[in-house]
Amino acid sequence: MSSSLSTFIQVPPNSDFTIYNLPYGVFSTLDNQKKRIGVAIGDEILDLSAILHLFEGPLLKLAFVNRSKATMHLPATIGDYTDFYSSIHHATNVGIMFRGKDNALLENWKHLPVGYHGRASSIVVSGVPVRRPWGQVKADEAKEPEFVASKLMDFELEMAFFVGGKENELGKPIPIDNIEEHIFGMVLMNDWSARDIQKWEYIPLGPFLSKSFATNISPWIVTMEALKPFIVANTKQDPPPMKHLHHSDDFNFDIELAVSIKREKSNVDYTLSKTNFKYLYWTIKQQLAHHASNGCNIRPGDLMGSGTISGPTPDSLGCLLELSWRGQNPVKLGDSGQTRKFLVDGDEVTIKGFCYDKKTNIRVGFGECRSMLLPAL
Amino acid sequence: MSSSLSTFIQVPPNSDFTIYNLPYGVFSTLDNQKKRIGVAIGDEILDLSAILHLFEGPLLKLAFVNRSKATMHLPATIGDYTDFYSSIHHATNVGIMFRGKDNALLENWKHLPVGYHGRASSIVVSGVPVRRPWGQVKADEAKEPEFVASKLMDFELEMAFFVGGKENELGKPIPIDNIEEHIFGMVLMNDWSARDIQKWEYIPLGPFLSKSFATNISPWIVTMEALKPFIVANTKQDPPPMKHLHHSDDFNFDIELAVSIKREKSNVDYTLSKTNFKYLYWTIKQQLAHHASNGCNIRPGDLMGSGTISGPTPDSLGCLLELSWRGQNPVKLGDSGQTRKFLVDGDEVTIKGFCYDKKTNIRVGFGECRSMLLPAL
Repeated sequence: MSSSLSTFIQVPPNSDFTIYNLPYGVFSTLDNQKKRIGVAIGDEILDLSAILHLFEGPLLKLAFVNRSKATMHLPATIGDYTDFYSSIHHATNVGIMFRGKDNALLENWKHLPVGYHGRASSIVVSGVPVRRPWGQVKADEAKEPEFVASKLMDFELEMAFFVGGKENELGKPIPIDNIEEHIFGMVLMNDWSARDIQKWEYIPLGPFLSKSFATNISPWIVTMEALKPFIVANTKQDPPPMKHLHHSDDFNFDIELAVSIKREKSNVDYTLSKTNFKYLYWTIKQQLAHHASNGCNIRPGDLMGSGTISGPTPDSLGCLLELSWRGQNPVKLGDSGQTRKFLVDGDEVTIKGFCYDKKTNIRVGFGECRSMLLPAL
Repeated sequence: MSSSLSTFIQVPPNSDFTIYNLPYGVFSTLDNQKKRIGVAIGDEILDLSAILHLFEGPLLKLAFVNRSKATMHLPATIGDYTDFYSSIHHATNVGIMFRGKDNALLENWKHLPVGYHGRASSIVVSGVPVRRPWGQVKADEAKEPEFVASKLMDFELEMAFFVGGKENELGKPIPIDNIEEHIFGMVLMNDWSARDIQKWEYIPLGPFLSKSFATNISPWIVTMEALKPFIVANTKQDPPPMKHLHHSDDFNFDIELAVSIKREKSNVDYTLSKTNFKYLYWTIKQQLAHHASNGCNIRPGDLMGSGTISGPTPDSLGCLLELSWRGQNPVKLGDSGQTRKFLVDGDEVTIKGFCYDKKTNIRVGFGECRSMLLPAL
């Protein structure tokens, strides 16, 4: 990585979208509603549709749109969406809460990257507000379930990667040595969760309506190329992964992540937790190789979530379920005097993430994934 | 329903595709590879692209393609695929096998139509062969899991409906009184399952690679309009469904279903089981109303599976897991002297289904969903 790259675009200090990043997104503007692909540089977007036949020169300046004037859309048409469960800290915490310390991690967890199919239709871009869902729930002490607006709304701090490259033929697994060709880039993700609906519905086929009401992602896909300078050692795996899940290169990333809540009518984002992508147990290469190991065809535009990213310490947990420990320990919102067990209508949840190299002062960031929780209908 | 409809096309006796059916499908031909929408009548396909501007007269005859000359494709681009678990006989049998008689049906099962998200990319049309997948499995007595070609391959006899109509806005549930506008028509489905992979992977997030390697559906969508004459009483539900899942009209269908196996190099389809769609506990109206009850947006082209359809008797079970009771009672293939605990490479599985009214001699059928199991790579 060289620190000598420069551009005639002024990139503000601390911008996520430096010349070392150049993420892809889909945008439109008031005067041109057509959705088109752009590359973010600082506060500007290079409109790729405007430079198809230009390669240099002053005309390029006409191809820039200020980000404040752009409406962002989903960066790709998502065919299938899969969500993994790859944070050992998250899986252990949830396991302790629901099954006790001795059975916290289930028997399969360290042998394969557990995951499940999610709902693609309800994935929306950052900024689109989310409505508190109704659903069937049953309190432990209740005799019968009831249909109510969820009372235990939660966020999940996640990241997700978009699949790129060529679709594999159905029935033909992708060897892990070739899997990188199929990983295009990453975004931030808030996998909104209704914990009371989840608890009642998820046995035996997994989460369904507790998640499918909405999922927000950040609009800019940061390419794996831009993230490579921030590779760190993989998490040590014991037992060692099976051969089809083994790769010898490091493919873990030092991405600093934070989640905050802004109360309705407030201007302050109160940070609840800071964590890091590098805490994940399973790498995204392992996730995708597992996914394709049965011959399932993986298509460009498929989205693969990491699962909630929790770190090893109490201040690095990725959801309120863990942060408040099922609501037992309300979380303070800074010095506001307010606390949260679960989310309150009007709360705006923001996930941010960036990579930073102190030596070179180079920053590659993801922007934000922000969305407000609207009251139930 | 009148029995007086007729057509200048000769419809063979026992054809599934009578003038009372008129199902929709997507096809191409050797001399015209363009995929186009057609309507099946007897052995012919009316090419809708050829009659866009014609409404009557002899020219219509040029718009017919013999079905033997057509290659069928998926009848729609499937956005999201959901599979329910709506047969009480199937859920009870599987429950007895895995948890014993006293805990057979889980607590939530009679309160909501349990379902989960499936993989859309690997849904293929009837005729496309399916490869036995590799996967991680762990035998009860084994200390460690292993990565092997699945040894417990199964079919699941299912039906599925395609969503039609207008997409609901994200966050806005579809009331069950309006849900019928969103149900277009039905197909047969074989939800191939690798039972050994399923058993090891499915806790706690549900089936994943044990199903996502392939799912076959029949190519012709039989419209709800064509099925209406075969409506029968809904299954009695106790406890009564909650208000958002309650509809007073009957929306259950008398569809006779059968599944057979043809061994490699044999010409005989050995029927293993005969069942009926009417045995389902939850109606498809209830399934879809449940799906949208949290505000999840449902898009035209979404596919909703019924889950394995088993009847109340040992000869009406919808998968080998049940028919052979986990392999304990091998199933005879007619008088061939052969048996099956689970599927053998080269087995071709065919699901057929039709409605028949004895009084009027009217038949509305689905054709078939046929596919061969190829050996593992």
